[in-house]
Amino acid sequence: MAVYTDVSFEDLESFLADYRIGVPLTFKGVAEGVENSNFFLRTEAGAFILTLYEKRVREADLPFFLGLMEHLSARGIACPLPVRRSDGALHGALNGRPCALLTFLTGVSLRRPQPRHCAAAAAALAAVHEAGRDFPLKRANALAVEDWRKLASLLVPRADSVEPGLGALIEAALAGLEWPRTLPCGVIHADLFPDNVLFTGGEVSGLIDFYFACNDALAYDLAVLLNAWCFDEDGAFDVARGRSLFAAYRAHRELSSDEIEALPVLAQGAALRFLLTRLHDLLHHDPTALVRPKDPRDFARRLRFHRAVKHPSEYGL
Amino acid sequence: MAVYTDVSFEDLESFLADYRIGVPLTFKGVAEGVENSNFFLRTEAGAFILTLYEKRVREADLPFFLGLMEHLSARGIACPLPVRRSDGALHGALNGRPCALLTFLTGVSLRRPQPRHCAAAAAALAAVHEAGRDFPLKRANALAVEDWRKLASLLVPRADSVEPGLGALIEAALAGLEWPRTLPCGVIHADLFPDNVLFTGGEVSGLIDFYFACNDALAYDLAVLLNAWCFDEDGAFDVARGRSLFAAYRAHRELSSDEIEALPVLAQGAALRFLLTRLHDLLHHDPTALVRPKDPRDFARRLRFHRAVKHPSEYGL
Repeated sequence: MAVYTDVSFEDLESFLADYRIGVPLTFKGVAEGVENSNFFLRTEAGAFILTLYEKRVREADLPFFLGLMEHLSARGIACPLPVRRSDGALHGALNGRPCALLTFLTGVSLRRPQPRHCAAAAAALAAVHEAGRDFPLKRANALAVEDWRKLASLLVPRADSVEPGLGALIEAALAGLEWPRTLPCGVIHADLFPDNVLFTGGEVSGLIDFYFACNDALAYDLAVLLNAWCFDEDGAFDVARGRSLFAAYRAHRELSSDEIEALPVLAQGAALRFLLTRLHDLLHHDPTALVRPKDPRDFARRLRFHRAVKHPSEYGL
Repeated sequence: MAVYTDVSFEDLESFLADYRIGVPLTFKGVAEGVENSNFFLRTEAGAFILTLYEKRVREADLPFFLGLMEHLSARGIACPLPVRRSDGALHGALNGRPCALLTFLTGVSLRRPQPRHCAAAAAALAAVHEAGRDFPLKRANALAVEDWRKLASLLVPRADSVEPGLGALIEAALAGLEWPRTLPCGVIHADLFPDNVLFTGGEVSGLIDFYFACNDALAYDLAVLLNAWCFDEDGAFDVARGRSLFAAYRAHRELSSDEIEALPVLAQGAALRFLLTRLHDLLHHDPTALVRPKDPRDFARRLRFHRAVKHPSEYGL
């Protein structure tokens, strides 16, 4: 929720000299995004988001992320479209940071999605999976099982300071995790939380924040969606949302029996991934930083739930 | 630079039920303003800023601040217009905070204003002074000379930790300050920094942030403007900007000889006001807060400059 790198109007003016979008009419830092600095920009040519990539996004990954958004946009996915510079480049630099200009999408993020919103998000995710099929670039998931194990070995010794028993939960979950390796793969969003889905009048008007996108199991992306959308504010699973979510996804892309069978394990994995990164961010939180860390315990509760699931039908499939 | 109070889309929806501006199309926290939480909102009816007033703005002062913006708007000043609720009220409450909805103004803030921008800002300030004449509500300046003395007595003992000699500078400045008491008074903005002036194509398109507005000497407001606009990034006075600023102001409202004579003292006072509040914010800074304190030393340097001024003509009058 912060702007880490300051950009003056005068910095912006020189930066925009490399683009063909006219002069700035409105320019404001946006208080969202934990990773990057974002600015809302309006020019005569329309509304844009200017993103300065801070330390967590590697410049070497930008061709994948930005190229993917361009690829998906061209295939009808409502995602930000990177604006190419006059020299054709997809990104430039500003105040020492790699920086891109993307179209601004109208819509609002929901905090308490209803089953119909879960369905809309799942249909949008299936469309991304479909449209991503012929995207030529590849990027390995930088937060895959092996990375969870590495993170866990560093974090488990201090985990109980956050919640008693948390270290044991993480170790048991990782020890018992038989990760499927033969599921259908493709481009996944990998972080499609309600924050990253914009709605206008009940319809999805935009998917944003593709900075965890990578190649991995498509059903893992659905497991992330399940974790992100189908638990209520108290952390309890809402089967009505799960039912809507899976029905809508399967209407666009049918799940194989392997994928369905793997869901409880994939859901445990997704819960572990967010539990571990949130735990990392909390334990390494710099109190002078401009963001408040998110609570990892939300995902400890989800993890416990998924570990108790005996059959995928419990998710509403 | 932060949003202190979280507002979900669902909170927003219930809040907007009291207004007649249609449904939200875009809703984003804005990373600006040190005092309040601000959100950019677009509905079918246009663009708005939703402001939640945090601890520094007293609810009892809102009728003055919001009423003033309504009054000035009606007299052609480009300032945010508070949107009245269906029941006629100028503000409501949201998540435990007093809250108002204001029209959003197009324009960008400058970081390095040129003399012509100083002239435009000064002309806009003179127009506020003129338009404020018949505003019926009154509000005393909560940061007037007596308040500086109180602040100083608390801060001077620790001031040298920020800059050696700072405590002595503050004491000497306050001891020598013969504050004028008979200058023409009226409604002043009291904080018209470049952050608070929006430009479109070199013209002023908006004045914002009226939350320090009060009744006080009009020439003091001009002294604040001088401090805020006429020093370069290294803190040196730029007489070309001063010349532009005073000429433009005087073209709209002539200064009396008393006002001109008082300028060096008023400018010292304005420098002291921002030096002291910044010093307070720095010495009381909560490292877990979501804002970075501003550097008080910028205003120590201005204060030294004003103390050395022998005649108002040195400002470019």
